[in-house]
Amino acid sequence: MILTDSLLDFFIETRDYTETICKPLETEDYVVQPIVDVSPPKWHLGHTTWFFEEFILKPHSKEYQLYNEDFAFVFNSYYESVGKRVVRSNRGNLSRPSVKKVYEYRAYVTRAINEMFQEPQEKFLNDLLEIGIHHEKQHQELLVTDIKYILGNNPLLPVYSKDFLEHEPENHLQEWLTMEEGIHPIGHSTDSFSYDNELGRHQVFLQSYLISNKLVTNGEFLEFIYHGGYENFENWHSEGLDWIKTNNISSPLYWHLVDGNWFHYTLQGLIPIDMAAPVTHISYYEAYAYAQWKGCRLPTEFEWETAQNFFPWGKRWEWTESAYLPYPNYQKAPGALGEYNGKFMVNQKVLRGASVATPSNHSRPTYRNFFQPPLRWQFTGFRLAK
Amino acid sequence: MILTDSLLDFFIETRDYTETICKPLETEDYVVQPIVDVSPPKWHLGHTTWFFEEFILKPHSKEYQLYNEDFAFVFNSYYESVGKRVVRSNRGNLSRPSVKKVYEYRAYVTRAINEMFQEPQEKFLNDLLEIGIHHEKQHQELLVTDIKYILGNNPLLPVYSKDFLEHEPENHLQEWLTMEEGIHPIGHSTDSFSYDNELGRHQVFLQSYLISNKLVTNGEFLEFIYHGGYENFENWHSEGLDWIKTNNISSPLYWHLVDGNWFHYTLQGLIPIDMAAPVTHISYYEAYAYAQWKGCRLPTEFEWETAQNFFPWGKRWEWTESAYLPYPNYQKAPGALGEYNGKFMVNQKVLRGASVATPSNHSRPTYRNFFQPPLRWQFTGFRLAK
Amino acid sequence: MILTDSLLDFFIETRDYTETICKPLETEDYVVQPIVDVSPPKWHLGHTTWFFEEFILKPHSKEYQLYNEDFAFVFNSYYESVGKRVVRSNRGNLSRPSVKKVYEYRAYVTRAINEMFQEPQEKFLNDLLEIGIHHEKQHQELLVTDIKYILGNNPLLPVYSKDFLEHEPENHLQEWLTMEEGIHPIGHSTDSFSYDNELGRHQVFLQSYLISNKLVTNGEFLEFIYHGGYENFENWHSEGLDWIKTNNISSPLYWHLVDGNWFHYTLQGLIPIDMAAPVTHISYYEAYAYAQWKGCRLPTEFEWETAQNFFPWGKRWEWTESAYLPYPNYQKAPGALGEYNGKFMVNQKVLRGASVATPSNHSRPTYRNFFQPPLRWQFTGFRLAK
Amino acid sequence: MILTDSLLDFFIETRDYTETICKPLETEDYVVQPIVDVSPPKWHLGHTTWFFEEFILKPHSKEYQLYNEDFAFVFNSYYESVGKRVVRSNRGNLSRPSVKKVYEYRAYVTRAINEMFQEPQEKFLNDLLEIGIHHEKQHQELLVTDIKYILGNNPLLPVYSKDFLEHEPENHLQEWLTMEEGIHPIGHSTDSFSYDNELGRHQVFLQSYLISNKLVTNGEFLEFIYHGGYENFENWHSEGLDWIKTNNISSPLYWHLVDGNWFHYTLQGLIPIDMAAPVTHISYYEAYAYAQWKGCRLPTEFEWETAQNFFPWGKRWEWTESAYLPYPNYQKAPGALGEYNGKFMVNQKVLRGASVATPSNHSRPTYRNFFQPPLRWQFTGFRLAK
Repeated sequence: MILTDSLLDFFIETRDYTETICKPLETEDYVVQPIVDVSPPKWHLGHTTWFFEEFILKPHSKEYQLYNEDFAFVFNSYYESVGKRVVRSNRGNLSRPSVKKVYEYRAYVTRAINEMFQEPQEKFLNDLLEIGIHHEKQHQELLVTDIKYILGNNPLLPVYSKDFLEHEPENHLQEWLTMEEGIHPIGHSTDSFSYDNELGRHQVFLQSYLISNKLVTNGEFLEFIYHGGYENFENWHSEGLDWIKTNNISSPLYWHLVDGNWFHYTLQGLIPIDMAAPVTHISYYEAYAYAQWKGCRLPTEFEWETAQNFFPWGKRWEWTESAYLPYPNYQKAPGALGEYNGKFMVNQKVLRGASVATPSNHSRPTYRNFFQPPLRWQFTGFRLAK
Repeated sequence: MILTDSLLDFFIETRDYTETICKPLETEDYVVQPIVDVSPPKWHLGHTTWFFEEFILKPHSKEYQLYNEDFAFVFNSYYESVGKRVVRSNRGNLSRPSVKKVYEYRAYVTRAINEMFQEPQEKFLNDLLEIGIHHEKQHQELLVTDIKYILGNNPLLPVYSKDFLEHEPENHLQEWLTMEEGIHPIGHSTDSFSYDNELGRHQVFLQSYLISNKLVTNGEFLEFIYHGGYENFENWHSEGLDWIKTNNISSPLYWHLVDGNWFHYTLQGLIPIDMAAPVTHISYYEAYAYAQWKGCRLPTEFEWETAQNFFPWGKRWEWTESAYLPYPNYQKAPGALGEYNGKFMVNQKVLRGASVATPSNHSRPTYRNFFQPPLRWQFTGFRLAK
Repeated sequence: MILTDSLLDFFIETRDYTETICKPLETEDYVVQPIVDVSPPKWHLGHTTWFFEEFILKPHSKEYQLYNEDFAFVFNSYYESVGKRVVRSNRGNLSRPSVKKVYEYRAYVTRAINEMFQEPQEKFLNDLLEIGIHHEKQHQELLVTDIKYILGNNPLLPVYSKDFLEHEPENHLQEWLTMEEGIHPIGHSTDSFSYDNELGRHQVFLQSYLISNKLVTNGEFLEFIYHGGYENFENWHSEGLDWIKTNNISSPLYWHLVDGNWFHYTLQGLIPIDMAAPVTHISYYEAYAYAQWKGCRLPTEFEWETAQNFFPWGKRWEWTESAYLPYPNYQKAPGALGEYNGKFMVNQKVLRGASVATPSNHSRPTYRNFFQPPLRWQFTGFRLAK
Repeated sequence: MILTDSLLDFFIETRDYTETICKPLETEDYVVQPIVDVSPPKWHLGHTTWFFEEFILKPHSKEYQLYNEDFAFVFNSYYESVGKRVVRSNRGNLSRPSVKKVYEYRAYVTRAINEMFQEPQEKFLNDLLEIGIHHEKQHQELLVTDIKYILGNNPLLPVYSKDFLEHEPENHLQEWLTMEEGIHPIGHSTDSFSYDNELGRHQVFLQSYLISNKLVTNGEFLEFIYHGGYENFENWHSEGLDWIKTNNISSPLYWHLVDGNWFHYTLQGLIPIDMAAPVTHISYYEAYAYAQWKGCRLPTEFEWETAQNFFPWGKRWEWTESAYLPYPNYQKAPGALGEYNGKFMVNQKVLRGASVATPSNHSRPTYRNFFQPPLRWQFTGFRLAK
């Protein structure tokens, strides 16, 4: 449990950092939605604000006046219990409220929370505030990846920031870590913050296994490409094969072959690929296909969690072989917050770790991220097991 | 033929007026594309500019330096002969070039044209300039209707301008004009500007017919609705029926039933419907269905052109029964400009007249506008014949 | 007007001929529907029968007992006024009623009509019977083309009949017929049978024109292919270009390039292409593109009707440049039969003539056939005009 | 290991039984494919035959002559390694080869296998034969469910057999079985036949849990419906909710509300629902939603396998909460047979048990069936856990 004082600091700091991420943007960059998975930055700014308004201020603050009644309709994401909302695919069609108005809305709500929490509040309200902060941190990560998609999809390939280093080699040698058979604890257990999907600490039995201490690199993935990895159906799931054929996919997202040399679009602009750096922006299907080709496999999320202490992680979200399912004794949170995780527990894959886009204080060994197998706009990567 | 001096004036005036239309916009309004038929205002600003650059400056001015090589890719609309281009449905995903850059591009090209035409130019260049001006005027009209769609599709229903009067009643009584059987000339014949699709002046034989001197009004159309006009299949084309069912259509675009009263979104904001004003934002299918229900029909474009002198027109583009087809002896213009009209002459309907969004100097009795039958975002309307 | 006696003969003969067409089929061939435009032969057999039951026997014969109540649901095609029906795309999913049952149903209804018309009937009933016969003749033509599609789409490419000659050269030399400017009558005028869409005989004014006395041949069309006709965008309508790209089209339907030689699937099986025979199974888009490439155009339906006396026709339905629109004073028939033509008068093209699949007594100079521009499974062809 | 003699008996018996299933069909029923998941019975007959031809006779019998070269193209299902094939959705468009020809093909291949295995063969060939037999048994189950779909989708709702009893109540009282926490073995271990996806026997740790000794009944599911189970979003996965909305689903497949009473189509025809019988033809989404509504959950496949000895099963395939994933040490079979299971291990759910359509000798406690969450045409059901 965090004391109110430091919680408020954490709140202010988080609110500020969200805006820091958006500093390099032009007004126009805030508005567009090139694919349905990407939300306009303006929407992230508004939605994270609405979350505090909807779940804390509106029901629990007597003085609070809604900033604008229509904003609930505009900035609700997927909470069925909270009422109607703009269809997700329509977010990029909304020019209003303007960016300026959204920043005013942010300031208004930040101020109201700040005032409300000057006085001590009940524990459940502190908990709600903490959830809201972590929710905003999740959106900080999405902001970075969505901005990358917005700029990287533009024919002018604009630079976001010359200082944002996406690709750093892991400088140690690749080795196989040997993990012994046995019963291991899985899930979150301490007092500190976590989501409901990490709770229900429980035991799993793992057979002995080997897991790599290093992520697969751009150079290794290029070898896969040059050996016809995308053409050989034996490497692929049946629906993975359909996916690469339907979408004409033959390399990771953002890779460009220019006059025989491979470049990739990064937040620093278009640069040559660093062969020693971990590959990124690949789908689960591609990670699986590479592993098949190598005669290996992806680790399960339980293997990953058990071994994670023995290797560095944190630059790539790592695809696992595990489907996103409830832990034993999983209980979804009551009310609208119960819609946060449970209703997505089908047809998605678990990713573990964190990425270059993950804000500080927002990764832990038990954190479970999840995406549909074809998604590539996150900083995904993978390590092998066998 | 227009003298260079007045042509330059016409050019400058047209370039200015385009920007005047955009004055009430926020930066964000320039960027979005809520449906594929609507282009972002930013794109209209750039595309009309690119037209002068691509067809006049680049090939015919020795001093001219391209403003930005990539802009041809961004701002080409559909000219296959000119090279690759952004897919139409992707226009609303482009945050760059920024609005500011697009205005700079406009100023740069306007200045270059101005300088080039200080000296007398060959006739074909004057003709090209004139086409470019008329092209921009067409886009002025699209700008107004696209802006309306962008704002009218927004849940906040913002006002564009309190002064833009879309709906003015035609104050005369409805009467049937009797037109005699006979041979009539059709098509453009004078020296003044026209598009290639109006040329090939020729004769048609018309049977005698009656044509209304007044457009169908909101009140009359509401009667159609209240008499189950949208439910009775007998009024509809087979594909019109599919269209209203698939899209759940039961009133004109922009109509809202609020607590039992009909309002419509206009550029002045949401206002009650004026029953005496001409109905607008209806598809060809709806115009046809109304006519069927009334035991009437729509006029052909030849009937319209022959009778147009006897009734007021100019507030609504009027659907006709005519398909968009080449006139006898139709010749498309040589080169890229030949893509302007001919390649669209299938599966579209002709509209005649002009609308409240049409700029001055941009309507004439022989002008042929054309759209697919379901389109409604233009200020369309119709009059009856029998 | 046809006397009842000969009308009954005409009826019996038509009913018989429908079954003759189906003689070479296996039971399985009656059932499938490889594309939505093709109906299973079983369905044609049932639908043409249902037409007599629904419009003559059920309302006008006191003794008649419905063969099976559910058949109206199964065999209604598109008559909204007659009640619910199987969705068109679902026809090929129905294994029942069996082919045997459908033949029993045919015999049952044929017998009932035969008995009913032993006694003299009112004129409107004779008219209905005549419409029903012509309706069945239309379906005879569809039966042939649908059977061809069913067999030609099968990887085993089965033979329908070694005697069915699709491709006969027109042995005269190609010449341009010169037609003078003037006023010409258009439409059906005699007592004999016609559809409502041919009526409303009226006058049109035609400019002078040239029209070819010969259909475009396979050899000529191959030249178009070899000169890159499918690749050069200048030949194509904008939507035609989309169509060939989306569907990977680069030759007429049923053409196969086998080891460098062109064959086509015909009702006689797979045979080499006869270069001197008229090309067939091409879309309007392809006919138009060929004409553009040749610097010619397609005739309008009015030009065709006016000139048709001066050239042979009847082996290919000929695409015209005309859109399918109502003639002046067009009146659709009252009741369900009014759904026969009028509701399709949008976004279709008129074809004139007849084809090798057209039954005898079912072609006339004023007959207006109509299809959407991309359709190719009919025996379509074209001649040039200029 | 089964001796050759009894293996040949098993082969003959299996081949016969497949044809017994098809006895009640009309020729037409063999041909159609109303949805992509359903294959025409003719195709099942040919495909199970092709399997023996392709994997045993063609590569391993010197005397064998292919029955027809084109059949490999027609009857291959999804084996990429074996060559091109008819697209799955096109199976119902093929009228040829005729049913008669397919039966001849069956007899030809059965005879050839019979002759070949009169002489003792190497173990791997006996193993291949055994796989082929089990493969055919899987298709026997599909034949029953596909036939049900073909007939149940027909507006005439024909009876398959008055003797096929789909719905028998489980006559014991519902009780919760208590299972203790501990380590349990999972997977196939004996000599007898199994698929590769059951192998890799391994240990799992299970927390203590309760599991019902009885399947959820029609009556219980109806209660869910009457309590608004389909309307309350809280019961549903996000994509389950989309699925029921998009497809207008509000009851199990084959249920019909007739004048206020619930009936369902069964292989015996349309009959009233037996409230005491286990519900069937529900998707995973519906099973999950029911469990949510009850405050329970579905068991995992490991819980099911561990507890299966304590309750009756075998009438319904039972949805589990487990995703279909490889067991530790999963090895796919070499060559084309390796495509049998592994490439489907993503985005599917495991079902355990067997159904009324499962042939004898084709169920075992370790058998893993798998389907996408929305599929309903199998005899699916479910039991609760907590």
